[in-house]
Amino acid sequence: MTLLNDEPLLTHDETECLADPRSGAPLYERLAEHYRRVIASGTLAPGDRMPSVRALMSQHRVSLSTAIQVFRRLEDGGWLQARPRAGYFVRRPGASKLATVAEPDIPALPEPARYVGLHERISRVIERAQAFPEALNLGGATADAALYPTGRLQALASRILRHKPTLLTEVGEDGGAAELRQAVAKRALSSGVTVSPDDVLVTSGGVEAVNLALRAVAQPGDTIAVESPAFFGLLQILESLGLRALEIPTSPTTGLSLEALDIALTACPDLKALVVVPNLQNPLGCVMPDARKAELVELCARRGIALIEDEPYRELIEPAQRALRAQPARPLKSWDRDGGVIYCASLNKVLAPGMRLGWMSSGRWHARVRLLKFAQTRHNESLAQFVAAEFIGSGAYDRHLHRLREKLRVQREASADAIGRYFPTGTRLNLPPGGLLLWVALPDGKSSDALFEAALPHGIRIAPGSIFSNSERFRSFIRLSCPAPFDERMDAAFRQLGRLAADLG
Amino acid sequence: MTLLNDEPLLTHDETECLADPRSGAPLYERLAEHYRRVIASGTLAPGDRMPSVRALMSQHRVSLSTAIQVFRRLEDGGWLQARPRAGYFVRRPGASKLATVAEPDIPALPEPARYVGLHERISRVIERAQAFPEALNLGGATADAALYPTGRLQALASRILRHKPTLLTEVGEDGGAAELRQAVAKRALSSGVTVSPDDVLVTSGGVEAVNLALRAVAQPGDTIAVESPAFFGLLQILESLGLRALEIPTSPTTGLSLEALDIALTACPDLKALVVVPNLQNPLGCVMPDARKAELVELCARRGIALIEDEPYRELIEPAQRALRAQPARPLKSWDRDGGVIYCASLNKVLAPGMRLGWMSSGRWHARVRLLKFAQTRHNESLAQFVAAEFIGSGAYDRHLHRLREKLRVQREASADAIGRYFPTGTRLNLPPGGLLLWVALPDGKSSDALFEAALPHGIRIAPGSIFSNSERFRSFIRLSCPAPFDERMDAAFRQLGRLAADLG
Repeated sequence: MTLLNDEPLLTHDETECLADPRSGAPLYERLAEHYRRVIASGTLAPGDRMPSVRALMSQHRVSLSTAIQVFRRLEDGGWLQARPRAGYFVRRPGASKLATVAEPDIPALPEPARYVGLHERISRVIERAQAFPEALNLGGATADAALYPTGRLQALASRILRHKPTLLTEVGEDGGAAELRQAVAKRALSSGVTVSPDDVLVTSGGVEAVNLALRAVAQPGDTIAVESPAFFGLLQILESLGLRALEIPTSPTTGLSLEALDIALTACPDLKALVVVPNLQNPLGCVMPDARKAELVELCARRGIALIEDEPYRELIEPAQRALRAQPARPLKSWDRDGGVIYCASLNKVLAPGMRLGWMSSGRWHARVRLLKFAQTRHNESLAQFVAAEFIGSGAYDRHLHRLREKLRVQREASADAIGRYFPTGTRLNLPPGGLLLWVALPDGKSSDALFEAALPHGIRIAPGSIFSNSERFRSFIRLSCPAPFDERMDAAFRQLGRLAADLG
Repeated sequence: MTLLNDEPLLTHDETECLADPRSGAPLYERLAEHYRRVIASGTLAPGDRMPSVRALMSQHRVSLSTAIQVFRRLEDGGWLQARPRAGYFVRRPGASKLATVAEPDIPALPEPARYVGLHERISRVIERAQAFPEALNLGGATADAALYPTGRLQALASRILRHKPTLLTEVGEDGGAAELRQAVAKRALSSGVTVSPDDVLVTSGGVEAVNLALRAVAQPGDTIAVESPAFFGLLQILESLGLRALEIPTSPTTGLSLEALDIALTACPDLKALVVVPNLQNPLGCVMPDARKAELVELCARRGIALIEDEPYRELIEPAQRALRAQPARPLKSWDRDGGVIYCASLNKVLAPGMRLGWMSSGRWHARVRLLKFAQTRHNESLAQFVAAEFIGSGAYDRHLHRLREKLRVQREASADAIGRYFPTGTRLNLPPGGLLLWVALPDGKSSDALFEAALPHGIRIAPGSIFSNSERFRSFIRLSCPAPFDERMDAAFRQLGRLAADLG
């Protein structure tokens, strides 16, 4: 439900009644209570714009200071959220009533594991999920096509093909199309990363970039530090390359624990590299504070281990969150002084999942990474690179990202709210400052594997916590995504999940 | 120069003179000699159609049997070539005067090498070549875009995008688009390979397929048998994966020596796999006879080593060559009974170099290869897969291949002829039955590295033999390609190369 900004929500009589001084409470409190009921009843839904201060003044015949106090009360109570230059929007308080996920235990550093079992565990989950192809996919990490600039990219692709038809039939450029390398290098500048187009290597998604980075810095049998929980795809890469993983406890709010990493570096002096997702970590959704990022880069440089930065999601961090930081969240690479950071970026989550484009800047391993890429897959398919280059180089990219972030925020909040409404008491989550992933702790040690299995026959796919670590620490967690507008199907799915979770032993 | 079939080549007087019985030689011999001069002078150029038998009869007023004898003399002398249902075409005898490349020494089996130096050697060659970006590239293995169906593919891509714009913005199918897997599986049937679409995995070119195959069957440190000479890209893959290569002598006419392989299998019992290009081997251009293929598959199955078949070029084998075999040259995979052959195909050389499409059918390693592909690059970009699927499924693909083979044959023969004309005496080559590669032996042990270096400042890039082996056995060989119509620029380049080769010490 959407309301025009100044449309009256109350009749004149209701306003008269609300404003009745005989009720005892101050006028602003009575008005705030009224709006709480309006929101709770669904008349104003999450994401709806709240009537403006001016509308409140004229409608309820109250002073400017009273109207402002109403907004403050509602905002403090978690009912409204201010958005710069857009006004106030409804935020149903379900999610904000959920407790946050606990911080990890630092001293309990697990042994490096080879993940031999994990690969199989992940494959089983993927296989089981594929047995229900029609299921609503809340287990993925990519938004629906409708959230990406499908029409514009299609028109662009057709136009580029008309002008350069030989893109399909000519050998592409080693290292990637110069146009795309220039476009991403230029854009990286605005996030504090200084790379020349020659430093950029275009890859087949971020996954290939991380593969190449690991192959460049490590040999089979080596140990690599990773966040815990970590993206299961990373754990698959490590196992497929014969690498051992050392899980470093990671905070759901501030990211990788530097204290734990320090302990690990002492306990395991032959650690070859660290792979980290500092901005919107998968699955936690946390953003590492900039001061900790700088400290991490310095620590790795001092200890002489390669720092592999995986960054598929940074552009999805909310502007509001950014504003708090006075500047956009920066990549680790922006603090790199000696080429010790291998930066791996991807356009899959932010622009076009079907185009499979990633890129990397490999610091002092550049020559080796280039050779490995050439021997592994040569260069990327050409057309998508030209399409992405032109789109990224235009203002359309920022406009798209702005819309995408807005939509994801609404979807994220509506999903979090549904969890608050439908999931059993004791369920915990941290609402991340961007992206489409929610990391949810089920209460009472309930098994997420059991919930995963129980949900499939109901046509719902989720990602169980067990695939994000080789340990059992996350067996009560699930990763849920909110890839599409929160419609009735989504609502029903969350309700069903909540019921199934409550029914678990 | 092209002549209409029945256009007179001689005036009536010339014909009278030729036919003069007083010259002693039989009439058909005198007429044949006349046509030799016509061809040698360039009036009839390589690739031109020879006047028909009927035209000869009416023009020279000779009988059918005389006319046929003329054609026989010219064909036997290598001046003409018959093409089924098309007539006779001129084949300048320059190339056929060249001696063929010597067969390899079987007993001299080299030690397995780690190729640590080779990777660097190849990189140096590639780097040197890239310093002369404007050079005429006779060192590649891909035809010019003009030889591929650029316009049709472009129109197809635009049409498919209009109907399925979300191909760019939707996550693709793991394992590859069902449409493409179906199309290549169906086409494989006609070459004797029975695979279901579920057996097919779409890859980022044939290079990724070979990478995945090797990763599936071997661990770093293992030894892999390869042809000698071998495609340098394969040697790079082996080195990048930490694998050791054992070079198996390979005949320039019949391919991999089974005798040498047998010796190698006994000498090196822990050999993990053999990688072989049975159809139009790169760089030799040879096609292994079918009987030897069957024997090779049986030998590998008996000895329990994985057989990795790399097949980028099979569709480029000439129909004439095929006709001799009564059926199209078959892949090794068509003899596979126990899933021991990993078949790696590519569309880069036959359809669209810019689309980076390959596919593989991995026999008993299918599940492992699928996991490795998922962990390495997920799935391919989507649009190109749909374009290729539709093109391959239509009759246009066969028409394109027919035209491509014809053009490559003319280019190959003209290039071989130019080598015969311009290169120093003692130069040797085998004219391959398809493709665009010529493997040329320089006389007197001349250094191909020196020729490579000498040619670059003249704007000509060639591939020196040194990069096709870890040994020094091919230091006097060069691989030349004929990617484009043999025009004046090509002729000048071959003339220049011949001069430079003659000047080498």
